[in-house]
Amino acid sequence: MFRKSFFLFLVVFLIASPVYAAPTVESLELSVNLVWVMLGAFLVFFMHAGFAMVESGFTRSKNTLNILMKNFLTISVAAILFYVIGYGLMFGTSGGSFIGVDGFLLSGVDDIGFFIFQAMFVATCATIMSGAVAERIKLGSYILIVIVMTAVIYPVVGHWIWQGDGWLTTLGFSDFAGSTVVHLTGAVGALMVVLILGPRLGKYKGKKVNVIPGHNIPLGALGVFILWLGWFGFNGGSSLAADPELVPMVIGTTLLSTSAALVASVAYTKLRFRRVDASLSLNGVLAGLVGITAGCAEISLSGSIIVGLVSGVLLVEGIRFLDATCKIDDPVGAIAVHGICGIWGTIAIGFFSTDTGLLYGYGTSQLAIQTIGVLAVIAWVGLTIGGFTYILNLISPIRVSEEEEVAGLDFAEHGSNAYDFKDTLLTNDDTDTATGLALADRLNNLPVGKSMKTE
Amino acid sequence: MFRKSFFLFLVVFLIASPVYAAPTVESLELSVNLVWVMLGAFLVFFMHAGFAMVESGFTRSKNTLNILMKNFLTISVAAILFYVIGYGLMFGTSGGSFIGVDGFLLSGVDDIGFFIFQAMFVATCATIMSGAVAERIKLGSYILIVIVMTAVIYPVVGHWIWQGDGWLTTLGFSDFAGSTVVHLTGAVGALMVVLILGPRLGKYKGKKVNVIPGHNIPLGALGVFILWLGWFGFNGGSSLAADPELVPMVIGTTLLSTSAALVASVAYTKLRFRRVDASLSLNGVLAGLVGITAGCAEISLSGSIIVGLVSGVLLVEGIRFLDATCKIDDPVGAIAVHGICGIWGTIAIGFFSTDTGLLYGYGTSQLAIQTIGVLAVIAWVGLTIGGFTYILNLISPIRVSEEEEVAGLDFAEHGSNAYDFKDTLLTNDDTDTATGLALADRLNNLPVGKSMKTE
Amino acid sequence: MFRKSFFLFLVVFLIASPVYAAPTVESLELSVNLVWVMLGAFLVFFMHAGFAMVESGFTRSKNTLNILMKNFLTISVAAILFYVIGYGLMFGTSGGSFIGVDGFLLSGVDDIGFFIFQAMFVATCATIMSGAVAERIKLGSYILIVIVMTAVIYPVVGHWIWQGDGWLTTLGFSDFAGSTVVHLTGAVGALMVVLILGPRLGKYKGKKVNVIPGHNIPLGALGVFILWLGWFGFNGGSSLAADPELVPMVIGTTLLSTSAALVASVAYTKLRFRRVDASLSLNGVLAGLVGITAGCAEISLSGSIIVGLVSGVLLVEGIRFLDATCKIDDPVGAIAVHGICGIWGTIAIGFFSTDTGLLYGYGTSQLAIQTIGVLAVIAWVGLTIGGFTYILNLISPIRVSEEEEVAGLDFAEHGSNAYDFKDTLLTNDDTDTATGLALADRLNNLPVGKSMKTE
Repeated sequence: MFRKSFFLFLVVFLIASPVYAAPTVESLELSVNLVWVMLGAFLVFFMHAGFAMVESGFTRSKNTLNILMKNFLTISVAAILFYVIGYGLMFGTSGGSFIGVDGFLLSGVDDIGFFIFQAMFVATCATIMSGAVAERIKLGSYILIVIVMTAVIYPVVGHWIWQGDGWLTTLGFSDFAGSTVVHLTGAVGALMVVLILGPRLGKYKGKKVNVIPGHNIPLGALGVFILWLGWFGFNGGSSLAADPELVPMVIGTTLLSTSAALVASVAYTKLRFRRVDASLSLNGVLAGLVGITAGCAEISLSGSIIVGLVSGVLLVEGIRFLDATCKIDDPVGAIAVHGICGIWGTIAIGFFSTDTGLLYGYGTSQLAIQTIGVLAVIAWVGLTIGGFTYILNLISPIRVSEEEEVAGLDFAEHGSNAYDFKDTLLTNDDTDTATGLALADRLNNLPVGKSMKTE
Repeated sequence: MFRKSFFLFLVVFLIASPVYAAPTVESLELSVNLVWVMLGAFLVFFMHAGFAMVESGFTRSKNTLNILMKNFLTISVAAILFYVIGYGLMFGTSGGSFIGVDGFLLSGVDDIGFFIFQAMFVATCATIMSGAVAERIKLGSYILIVIVMTAVIYPVVGHWIWQGDGWLTTLGFSDFAGSTVVHLTGAVGALMVVLILGPRLGKYKGKKVNVIPGHNIPLGALGVFILWLGWFGFNGGSSLAADPELVPMVIGTTLLSTSAALVASVAYTKLRFRRVDASLSLNGVLAGLVGITAGCAEISLSGSIIVGLVSGVLLVEGIRFLDATCKIDDPVGAIAVHGICGIWGTIAIGFFSTDTGLLYGYGTSQLAIQTIGVLAVIAWVGLTIGGFTYILNLISPIRVSEEEEVAGLDFAEHGSNAYDFKDTLLTNDDTDTATGLALADRLNNLPVGKSMKTE
Repeated sequence: MFRKSFFLFLVVFLIASPVYAAPTVESLELSVNLVWVMLGAFLVFFMHAGFAMVESGFTRSKNTLNILMKNFLTISVAAILFYVIGYGLMFGTSGGSFIGVDGFLLSGVDDIGFFIFQAMFVATCATIMSGAVAERIKLGSYILIVIVMTAVIYPVVGHWIWQGDGWLTTLGFSDFAGSTVVHLTGAVGALMVVLILGPRLGKYKGKKVNVIPGHNIPLGALGVFILWLGWFGFNGGSSLAADPELVPMVIGTTLLSTSAALVASVAYTKLRFRRVDASLSLNGVLAGLVGITAGCAEISLSGSIIVGLVSGVLLVEGIRFLDATCKIDDPVGAIAVHGICGIWGTIAIGFFSTDTGLLYGYGTSQLAIQTIGVLAVIAWVGLTIGGFTYILNLISPIRVSEEEEVAGLDFAEHGSNAYDFKDTLLTNDDTDTATGLALADRLNNLPVGKSMKTE
């Protein structure tokens, strides 16, 4: 029978090596691992939609277009740069323990699927900064920082920890899916840029710490759900193989840690503020995800619940500490989520790993190694991103003018608005509940074409 | 070549059994089934985002944060409880035909992937209640009901029907993916709680049945799309194996039944109310999904279209019957969708199963068995959830105060609002269409930093 | 161990052939390809959510319910018709090179998975029209056009290009995932209907080209992310097999082309209009996706970046050309995205294919073949959809009345509104930033049950 498969056969015959001529156990293993890693890559890609919704929902409506553009630019710029240079710096094999120096433009690289999975990760690291610097950074300055981060800074961290020759790999540092590589790196970058940027206008007045609420929490909540979904690919796909023993454990710890963190954030804000705080609880979900990312493959299911509970409480106190005590203005709480919980997740391995953890009787050596890794990454990213942004800011201020900030970045940078509800908003008063008609009556009695609004 | 795979090798070597040392046909079968079931689990997880969007979109904006919190809490609490106790009650093998009594904390359980898939299902059952009780239940009371439902009531139903020793399994009761196990169980729970709660303020005044419209139908529609997507994993993943014969049939019946139900709801509301009702039609999609869930593996493609057409009409009349006739206030129509169509889907097997159905000449015995199962589940869930909620309500009323209901649960329980559009709403009048400028002109002529709004 | 798997065994035993009795390399190959194609099908299905969000977000809020209904109806009607008739016309093997004439109701068709994947594609083609004709077409007329398009017009195009006997297949025309089959077909259909419909009221006044801005860009941006995600399944799944060589290349070119197109649209609108235009840039993402769809399997990674850069610029100029020069009113830019970039993507193979492209020294013959295919599809779809719509419009005007258009189609066709924010909007002024209270203070000091709004 012909059909598209005939055409496919031609394409395969012409382009690819004829893998499907006769399937073998080895070729099928490649195929099933491919499907798993691609599924993971797609889910990690979708996390960028999640970040975009979280960041825009949790900030003001006058900066929404700007945040959306930043998120699309981040994944796009990061993917291209990772292809051109980043992959080579990160996974190149001939540069020693600090940095790779081959494989640029994927030259000599066989496993394109692995590149794709990793390319989705890179942008994640940069997107973390996007939320923290929202509502006041120039679009152009942000892109320059993203370029440096994704082309150089992050690949170096990745080389240290995820490449066989990396010095932290050699030391025994453990970070399965990136609590440190991705999340702490992004958070330290965010912190440095925020320190240079300063807080949003009106955020801190004397001793007062003003709350600037988000404008569309349902959109943000959808983003959190998307991130949770995507994280199953982020952690699960990091196995790089459809291993029937390892994968379910990774997914199980990711599910339970996150569930526990949400419960902890809900309960803790209820105790602390006498209300279940929705924004903090939603961030609690992300805290639980970041917290289990490093250890998801070597912490038990029960252990993951404890890691998550700690993450959920740590998040609430972390956000308060950074905001009220340090006066560091992070509109979406990204530094607490990815930084504080990234550190916690990395260190937690030293306690909870069933292979090396203190609580399983393995002493403190893993704890020490984990701490060294955390400090090294903080130093590297802090110095490089901090230095770059400092110089950038000297050359041309990275912050928009006060006038533009007040007007909103959507107007200043994009000349437009994110919303326009005028066609429906004015029409609600004279319909619906007020009229007291049942649905059928209301529909049957409507005069056809009654003008609800005349433009 | 080293890279992350080196690190992975170490992890695998240390933690898991060395499955990948030499792939075999048997190990690959485990892997490919794992990928399929994990894909299903992720999609079922994503259904919780769908439920959250449907429930918040179809209710009023003053209760949105509360609904979002309920949805996140439901999946989180359910996942943890299913790990601790529910899985053991449901799939434990040593307790006989009514309930399992081993496997708590997954002790002795090998197939963690199966646990994960099932854990995603549990919360679905509880989330169904969330929509029906929306806008008037106390958050704490809701959580207590969820705990009882997910830790005990649902696992017992699951044991009866999905465990090899269950008495309904033994009887020959058929419910492939859970029209009864999940949907009817959730709907009966919802009905009992709603009967105790009573209708929302202002819903029924004398003989008048007021419509309380949803506040964000696009969000609800997105939720319906997400649910439809997720259902492919719900039904498809229930095969538990990437069976090249069974899986496409399951996906095919799910696609066609749902398509037919949407068409039926659209056509029927057009005939009945002289307008295509958007809310009812969107619920029609869910009706078609619930209706085919039991029989998706044993009804033909053409049969699934008929099942869907019936579901779509049944949904419209079901919602009207519960609302206008019974005065049961279910803000999102969950009882009709999951209850009435859950019964229909279960019974439909007795007619349309190509293996046992009346229409294929197999007599009425399957029909009788399906009816017994439906009645047994209604009795069990009705008595237990009804009894528990009744007692709970005596101890402490489960309904918020009238004052809190009027103010909205977002204010009363969370001290905040879901939306804040003030930064854009005021600015639309003096721009855009009114000015009659083309895009390029508008952008070129904008004075940089013109203050659109001064805070 | 029993459990659900026991029940499954029975089902499999009764219904399907006993594939799982003893897994073989051949049965596993079927399974792993099944999982890949189903993943692709699910992602393509989800694209309909993306289209629905893009189309509703980029138009006015008074037509939102109508657009949502159109999108749900499109996928539903298309799936049923493709089962009944379309698949047979498209992949039937006994009708020669122009059209198939067997396989209706899938009679004699073995590969149900292939049907499912293709069924998801059909609706895509029709949905493209939905956006272009938005805000002024009658729902019933739209559905009639969708019926003709999905039941006959598109299957014929598909037969020409994707069936082994098709005349364009035989000629050597190359369109891996459908730049022409799906996107150009949809765009030509859209163009014909738009020409008959005419522009929206107030769009063109004398020489003035008015901008009618979308009402919810974040929703549209989410839709774009969903489409990008879905496209990995659209292009990747078109391999029909989990080929470890081909699939990563397809995903890689799809990722890089799209990233490049977004960057190009951002940069080009910045240069052209001195602002980064958000709507055009979001459409740039779609342009990059459409542009690489034909050649994703035979263009190199670097080549895909060039294809994407061209797509991004072409999109901006294409939208301006159609709008300002041709006065063709396409509310969401669908004709430029899917038509102009569909042509570009098809032709680009003639330049960039590593197997047949001019730039790789293979001469102009592929370029000629690609051009013939494009012209043939334009002629076929233009004449048939144009003719059908013209006659339909003579029998009964396909456009709503002026009164209904002003009132909005949500009111005219559905008697309802898409949004109702009155419960939160009025309450923002007296809370939040204005009060200058920190989060904890604000929460602690709230009087319980303070009435924020009395209905």
